[in-house]
Amino acid sequence: MTQVDVRIFEVGPRDGLQNEAATIPTDTKLQFISLLAAAGLREIEATSFVSPAAIPQLADADELYPRLEPRPGVRYPALVPNRRGLERAIAAGVDAVCVFTAASETFTRHNIGMSIAESLEAFRPVVEHGREAGWWVRGYLSTAFGCPYEGPVTESAVVAVAEGLLALGVDEVSIGDTIGVAGPADVRRVVGALGAAGIGPDRLAMHFHDTRGTALANVTAALELGIGCFDSSTGGTGGCPYAPGAAGNLATEDLVYLLDREGLRHGADLDRILAAARFISEALGRPLASKVGQAGGWPS
Amino acid sequence: MTQVDVRIFEVGPRDGLQNEAATIPTDTKLQFISLLAAAGLREIEATSFVSPAAIPQLADADELYPRLEPRPGVRYPALVPNRRGLERAIAAGVDAVCVFTAASETFTRHNIGMSIAESLEAFRPVVEHGREAGWWVRGYLSTAFGCPYEGPVTESAVVAVAEGLLALGVDEVSIGDTIGVAGPADVRRVVGALGAAGIGPDRLAMHFHDTRGTALANVTAALELGIGCFDSSTGGTGGCPYAPGAAGNLATEDLVYLLDREGLRHGADLDRILAAARFISEALGRPLASKVGQAGGWPS
Repeated sequence: MTQVDVRIFEVGPRDGLQNEAATIPTDTKLQFISLLAAAGLREIEATSFVSPAAIPQLADADELYPRLEPRPGVRYPALVPNRRGLERAIAAGVDAVCVFTAASETFTRHNIGMSIAESLEAFRPVVEHGREAGWWVRGYLSTAFGCPYEGPVTESAVVAVAEGLLALGVDEVSIGDTIGVAGPADVRRVVGALGAAGIGPDRLAMHFHDTRGTALANVTAALELGIGCFDSSTGGTGGCPYAPGAAGNLATEDLVYLLDREGLRHGADLDRILAAARFISEALGRPLASKVGQAGGWPS
Repeated sequence: MTQVDVRIFEVGPRDGLQNEAATIPTDTKLQFISLLAAAGLREIEATSFVSPAAIPQLADADELYPRLEPRPGVRYPALVPNRRGLERAIAAGVDAVCVFTAASETFTRHNIGMSIAESLEAFRPVVEHGREAGWWVRGYLSTAFGCPYEGPVTESAVVAVAEGLLALGVDEVSIGDTIGVAGPADVRRVVGALGAAGIGPDRLAMHFHDTRGTALANVTAALELGIGCFDSSTGGTGGCPYAPGAAGNLATEDLVYLLDREGLRHGADLDRILAAARFISEALGRPLASKVGQAGGWPS
């Protein structure tokens, strides 16, 4: 893999598309993922082996995954929620998986119908198999900065769940601002608490939402704390389920623009990312809403 | 004036409205300014004594300015481009003025039909009268991070024009990212060069555009450099004349949200700012496009 200063973890094909009303044909998804890889992205979360009834947008995971084009240095993680999903993932040939829980009990109940502790137990066979099989394994820790049901979330709750995920054996924990409320001081507070508990920035990724315009400010603060991996969604797909019409995932093109201005190497090409962003926006039948999608790069 | 950590310099009624296609009635502008003051904003750029033919949106400056409601601790600066504008400003009763030039020769030619040196000479009587009369005087230094005609702008060009403005006698220089291209590293570079030339953060304000989503990241970097004044436009009015459909001025509600999360005192109330933002968006006949305008504050 080419040397990079910052890893970009692309979540558009999974996290982005699962929150869109439209269901995209499998061939279109594969073309999107191919454009993302061609743009230089090296970690592309491709799909989720969750129940097709729960998330019909990703019901084609079993068909899509084996058709992903193998590329040197490119990883295609898939979300795997439980043992049933693990069986499907093995059959599909995955070698990188993600599990998903949260810092808020109420959110976890609403989102996956389990307590946080139960979710960690559900992940145990997934992570154990992954470690034995030599897979790369990531844990998502959402609502780390605020919960749509409970409001503010304490950093000690975040630390406890991060410790639980790492104890299971995940390689990395992605700390999510699921409803897009964090500011830089919150990032310093939460990452600081994790560091004080012995969980350094090398074990962390940050997953910011741009719902209140703070995503790149939070990236800026996180870079100063030594964080080296950021999640983003090309085209800014996904929206915010808790604030209709508002933005959700940080757009990859906005992240890339900032990293380019900072002079940080990441391996992606802004113009090609924008091409992929336009492609998926057209497929979804809506205008490209990201800032750099509207304004273009610079110098042009 | 109540103690604040950060000054918010509201530019909506002048910089925002002058770049909108719609012309707003004087009574509506006065109601907007009254809402802004009621929201706790203490520096509200009210209008411009520029040629009515050049900017018809602000042709009512002579009528509007004397009707502004005096409020303790609230300043209503007005833009004054030259001696003719100065006469009108004196007649209208102003006590705080702004002059406007740029770091790019081509931009200055296109924007105000003068060279940078000629623009400074045109400001001389304005600033000299202002100092004698005890007015507060600000100089805008636009295209400090990039020019729509010339491309990249050097920090030495910014330093030279800032020195020219301060030599005239302005109290403060507002450093503008007119086309919204800067990232945090650019902010550190330009503010650093100004500091090395003896122009410290106490003489500076930052005027960021959110065209590429970096405005709050740049605020975050500028706060760390000791900058204590930021320009913004309630409702994010103005747009970007160089990228149709893209954002221009940082929205005051987005700035206030960030400052609130940072725990910094500024005197403004987010809910009341949002009320003013909705008011002016309705008057302009378009949806409120700012991030916090779409998503709301937090906790709600």
